[in-house]
Amino acid sequence: NEIPHNEKLLSLKYESLDYDNSENQLFLEEERRINHTAFRTVEIKRWVICAMIGILTGLVACFIDIVVENLAGLKYRVVKDNIDKFTEKGGLSFSLLLWATLNASVVMVGSVIVAFIEPVAAGSGIPQIKCYLNGVKIPHVVRLKTLVIKVCGVILSVVGGLAVGKEGPMIHSGAVIAAGISQGRSTSLKRDFKIFEYFRRDTEKRDFVSAGAAAGVSAAFGAPVGGVLFSLEEGASFWNQFLTWRIFFASMISTFTLNSVLSVYHGNAWDLSSPGLINFGRFDNEKMGYTIQEIPIFIFMGVVGGILGALFNALNYWLTMFRIRYIHRPCLQVVEAMLVAAVTATVGFVMIYCSRDCQPIQGSTVAYPLQVGDAGECWGLNSETRPCWVLWHWTSQPSGSDASNSVFFPLQLFCADGEYNSMATTFFNTPEKSVVNLFHDAPGSYNPMTLGMFTLMYFFLACWTYGLTVSAGVFIPSLLIGAAWGRLFGISLSYLTKGSIWADPGKYALMGAAAQLGGIVRMTLSLTVIMMEATGNVTYGFPIMLVLMTAKIVGDYFVEGLYDMHIQLQSVPFLHWEAPVTSHSLTAREVMSAPVTCLRRIERVGTVVDILSNTSSNHNGFPVVESNPGTTQVAGLRGLILRSQLIVLLKHKVFVERANLSLVQRRLKLKDFRDAYPRFPPIQSIHVSQDERECMIDLSEFMNPSPYTVPQEASLPRVFKLFRALGLRHLVVVNNRNEVVGMVTRKDLARYRLGKEGLEELSLAQT
Amino acid sequence: NEIPHNEKLLSLKYESLDYDNSENQLFLEEERRINHTAFRTVEIKRWVICAMIGILTGLVACFIDIVVENLAGLKYRVVKDNIDKFTEKGGLSFSLLLWATLNASVVMVGSVIVAFIEPVAAGSGIPQIKCYLNGVKIPHVVRLKTLVIKVCGVILSVVGGLAVGKEGPMIHSGAVIAAGISQGRSTSLKRDFKIFEYFRRDTEKRDFVSAGAAAGVSAAFGAPVGGVLFSLEEGASFWNQFLTWRIFFASMISTFTLNSVLSVYHGNAWDLSSPGLINFGRFDNEKMGYTIQEIPIFIFMGVVGGILGALFNALNYWLTMFRIRYIHRPCLQVVEAMLVAAVTATVGFVMIYCSRDCQPIQGSTVAYPLQVGDAGECWGLNSETRPCWVLWHWTSQPSGSDASNSVFFPLQLFCADGEYNSMATTFFNTPEKSVVNLFHDAPGSYNPMTLGMFTLMYFFLACWTYGLTVSAGVFIPSLLIGAAWGRLFGISLSYLTKGSIWADPGKYALMGAAAQLGGIVRMTLSLTVIMMEATGNVTYGFPIMLVLMTAKIVGDYFVEGLYDMHIQLQSVPFLHWEAPVTSHSLTAREVMSAPVTCLRRIERVGTVVDILSNTSSNHNGFPVVESNPGTTQVAGLRGLILRSQLIVLLKHKVFVERANLSLVQRRLKLKDFRDAYPRFPPIQSIHVSQDERECMIDLSEFMNPSPYTVPQEASLPRVFKLFRALGLRHLVVVNNRNEVVGMVTRKDLARYRLGKEGLEELSLAQT
Repeated sequence: NEIPHNEKLLSLKYESLDYDNSENQLFLEEERRINHTAFRTVEIKRWVICAMIGILTGLVACFIDIVVENLAGLKYRVVKDNIDKFTEKGGLSFSLLLWATLNASVVMVGSVIVAFIEPVAAGSGIPQIKCYLNGVKIPHVVRLKTLVIKVCGVILSVVGGLAVGKEGPMIHSGAVIAAGISQGRSTSLKRDFKIFEYFRRDTEKRDFVSAGAAAGVSAAFGAPVGGVLFSLEEGASFWNQFLTWRIFFASMISTFTLNSVLSVYHGNAWDLSSPGLINFGRFDNEKMGYTIQEIPIFIFMGVVGGILGALFNALNYWLTMFRIRYIHRPCLQVVEAMLVAAVTATVGFVMIYCSRDCQPIQGSTVAYPLQVGDAGECWGLNSETRPCWVLWHWTSQPSGSDASNSVFFPLQLFCADGEYNSMATTFFNTPEKSVVNLFHDAPGSYNPMTLGMFTLMYFFLACWTYGLTVSAGVFIPSLLIGAAWGRLFGISLSYLTKGSIWADPGKYALMGAAAQLGGIVRMTLSLTVIMMEATGNVTYGFPIMLVLMTAKIVGDYFVEGLYDMHIQLQSVPFLHWEAPVTSHSLTAREVMSAPVTCLRRIERVGTVVDILSNTSSNHNGFPVVESNPGTTQVAGLRGLILRSQLIVLLKHKVFVERANLSLVQRRLKLKDFRDAYPRFPPIQSIHVSQDERECMIDLSEFMNPSPYTVPQEASLPRVFKLFRALGLRHLVVVNNRNEVVGMVTRKDLARYRLGKEGLEELSLAQT
Repeated sequence: NEIPHNEKLLSLKYESLDYDNSENQLFLEEERRINHTAFRTVEIKRWVICAMIGILTGLVACFIDIVVENLAGLKYRVVKDNIDKFTEKGGLSFSLLLWATLNASVVMVGSVIVAFIEPVAAGSGIPQIKCYLNGVKIPHVVRLKTLVIKVCGVILSVVGGLAVGKEGPMIHSGAVIAAGISQGRSTSLKRDFKIFEYFRRDTEKRDFVSAGAAAGVSAAFGAPVGGVLFSLEEGASFWNQFLTWRIFFASMISTFTLNSVLSVYHGNAWDLSSPGLINFGRFDNEKMGYTIQEIPIFIFMGVVGGILGALFNALNYWLTMFRIRYIHRPCLQVVEAMLVAAVTATVGFVMIYCSRDCQPIQGSTVAYPLQVGDAGECWGLNSETRPCWVLWHWTSQPSGSDASNSVFFPLQLFCADGEYNSMATTFFNTPEKSVVNLFHDAPGSYNPMTLGMFTLMYFFLACWTYGLTVSAGVFIPSLLIGAAWGRLFGISLSYLTKGSIWADPGKYALMGAAAQLGGIVRMTLSLTVIMMEATGNVTYGFPIMLVLMTAKIVGDYFVEGLYDMHIQLQSVPFLHWEAPVTSHSLTAREVMSAPVTCLRRIERVGTVVDILSNTSSNHNGFPVVESNPGTTQVAGLRGLILRSQLIVLLKHKVFVERANLSLVQRRLKLKDFRDAYPRFPPIQSIHVSQDERECMIDLSEFMNPSPYTVPQEASLPRVFKLFRALGLRHLVVVNNRNEVVGMVTRKDLARYRLGKEGLEELSLAQT
């Protein structure tokens, strides 16, 4: 096998989710009783939940934004005061030390909470959510604790000055919020609000998690349509109009909430000018329109983006392999995160100090009033002589599309009056703002050398940072790298053509950003729409689409997308959209697991307990067969029962004594199953006495009486399609006489992959 | 049954489509042989076809736009000269006569070609395409002849001055183009290009038709994302990432082609300012932003739109019933169309004459140079004294978002110099331009009385027009009605609040347009995105979504959406997204058709011919069972074979003689099936001699060996989900021993509907 797997990873146990509705007889009975009014109530509840998801996701985004703003403002003030002091006295190395230490300490806290409290909160969370929507639950991924750690972690990472963004984690946050609200309870808080009990099953929860992820994208980029498409592209295999409409509703509410709250916070209530955590600013057709002749150039940029993205992913792959092997202890992980934070600060400082790329401030500069503390003092651009950290990005300038039009905030730093330090502008801003600057600064604002150096350093820093044990996203760093080399490309083009009409480098920065991001994450439709919505210009859709497509094609030639790579590194049994094309010759008989442990319709309790306790075969679904004398014989299929259902049956001791088969000790309700969902107790915690072992248990009352089946001659793509379209967890393979011959699970389907030399089999973790 | 159906409609025969891939053994064999290279070739072909679909759809849209522009310019010139003459002399009634006659004659031609040559080209074609994507083919719907008639028809309808738009028919046109290109041949032209033969089956064709429909939306509204969502919302049940990406590609190419060609045509090449046939013009945040307080008002407008939409649909329903009963002869249909054309012209003329609502021309007017003939002479607004039809909408003003900003083209008509006739402005423009005017004209441009009268008259005219035997869309008339009452609403609000900040009536015109369109067609997600893309402003998404949602909820309370209504009136077995909620108590056993005609694996040719010739049971799929002596007995399922496959087998006489079972006369290839697709000859055309009747036919080589099955206890929603998710045409119902007990087809599932008093059964046409 090509990919060496760490033993630890393969021993991880994921949980497969079951997105097929018909769980058991009790559920079917409930559905049969449902009338129009009850259905309408459920439908209204769904909408209410989606609205709540939107509102809460928006509020969480606001919280992150505002806290980052204030904390980082504080940090910058401290550092600025220090630099002011030491620039006068000499001894700037002490400033560097302070700066690096401050960053490292903040990142340390962020890393400690992730590494020691909730490791699943590391990274952007997008691979984990992709897995969840695909049908694999990584443990703890949608818990409240994860959300808290994620939010705190991302704040600390951004404040700690790492090359990270706060957009990716919003997707994970939205998903956790959705999972929490839709269940009407929190196990972490030990509270059950006794509401929304109808939604306590995998299908419903998945639908709400889709909405939450979409709301997260929407809040992050102000892109509600992009959010919907992201959820659909990454998750839902069965397109349902009503579901999609609800997802869209949640997205819209989310961006609207963020917009309202941030507008009020920034003092310009009601004007709704901050639809997302990042806005690209307006790209006007007049000033920044493209012409048809430029399209080949954009496509070329797509190629470059694809290659650079593949390089990024390849480097990150080796880094991740290294981390899996050697840096798996939490302490080491914290130390690495601190190291990266210190190095990031140092690299920036040294580069600013060395480059001394001073550019004259141009007339178009718009100065917005500062609101954060005394930072305002350094805005009198000509009245001060000492180096000044213009803390523009902590100002509350109206960040709407209109204002961003003329964004140009210079940092004077080591430069003469009336000049600003170009390297500092790119390096010491929040990445979000740097991206917007690269898009919109007037031509000539950046020195090509500066940009080149910046791109190079930031590329490696971002690559090193992704995969650290901190909560952080890769969207913004990717955009920033791309915007930097894109702008550099635009400047070169302008030199070459001696300033023709298409000389505006901001346009190329945008295309570069798209190309780089596309080359790294390989998202297609949703990313195009997100970029379109973030620029607010529909005509840019066509070149952005071409760029992303090219980047994806070129990148896929070398190496997978970053998220898919990490999913595969974790040995997750992930089902792609289609079965590998060359798998048509495989049949269900060849891929299925056989023999299958079957249960009889009326089964001895002892047998059930033994089967469930058998650790070597940790099956989750058991075909229920005609009560033939020997269970090892193939027998006619009558139904399917899940491990979780058996556990509930055993827990409530729904046994019949041998003599009197009709006596049921307690009438089990659907509520008993729902209360236990999703954390069913392990079999070891259920005590069954020796007498009880001799009782019988009637499974036919609780099993799913008509499980989906597939004949053993069916080809793998056919099985795959059925499995994927319906979101199954178990698919029973039967012969011509409807007798059970095997069982296909997610892992059986996910392990086939199209490699260089035809079909390959992967090693996957347990589910 | 609530809906009285015309006998004729119920006797219509639609064709169900089969969107499940695994057709027969030969196909499976071909798939098994496919390798990576072959797969890649197919994939590239798919992209090439999508690009071609986009280009051709864009070109057709351009063709329609340019021809309408020139023809209508000609017509207006003739009428203008006439009015000039008779205003001087007196006797304007003669002008009216000329105007009405001219319109009626043009519409007559448009109606004649539709009524006599290709009736399926009538209307917008959206219901037909919805059906196609759903899996029901209305005869001739994707033929080349239909496209030609559609394009000519829509040109003539618009030139004839009917209250119609040219946007809806673009969707149908795109779909036909897609179906034609993807098959690489045209039966109408009797040409087979011998390319793209791989795509000659229902699944592939459906995918391309989705792309074509999306390209059509994209060209019509400049809304590529909206196009993709339209296709998904109306069609695809199985969301596939690659498919969606291709659909998006086709959409993008389509709007880009339209944009390029129209830009070149209008003389401002390369500036790409015409993304769609209609652009709403730019809604700036500064000038036309909304505030949170306005949201309840927008929701109220949604309620009004829902009620008015329901009224429109209800009126149109009765009108359609009347037409089905009394106006089904083509001659009568043509006469009705002519009548509507004449009445439309008369109403407009009389209203303009009577209202005399003259408004002073304001300073902001921008005069664009005219290019069409001598119409330019009437632009000297003060130098002329006679009434002047300012043919603004035939001028080639740059129609991009920038220019539309200041659109304000007055028509002087019966008014004094320096004034313009407000009623004429709304009434005698192309509906597209009137919509944009209502959105963007400065406050005070319209007299409330004028707008009220206009709304009322246009509402009834549009309602009368939809359903005529002409090619025409309902999008633009709906938008226009809504924009008119929306603006009226905005003006009233401004009066009431004495001109507060939110006085701009254009904003309300936009919301009114959305509400009215939403109330009529009841589209949700895709319509929001289309409106968002057409306005080019993402922040408007939230109120538009709320308005559309409210309009849908309110409208659904009264009556169905217009398209669904027409689909139901035609008794099409249309599958909605989900089974009715109260149908859980129904099982497969109750809904299936039984007994089923089964075939044995080795069957006598005579039996096959007799079964296929039996007109009383026009089944399309036959279960193949174990060769038991008696065929009426239930027997084990072995496969499924389609009528079309049997026909091909009979046609090529793939028989084995009784004595020697292994002799096959000719080796049948997959190509034989593909060549016959989709118009398989009827059984009557195949001659089978008496000797041949005694031969045997081996079905096991050609049947689908592993058809999807469902146990007879499965509930209707479960069967429905399987059927819809996989796009099936036949679903075999089996018992516990895998023996055939029945068959579920589309009609069995589509006939259940949630009525006022629970589950109802509909009468549906044959398939």
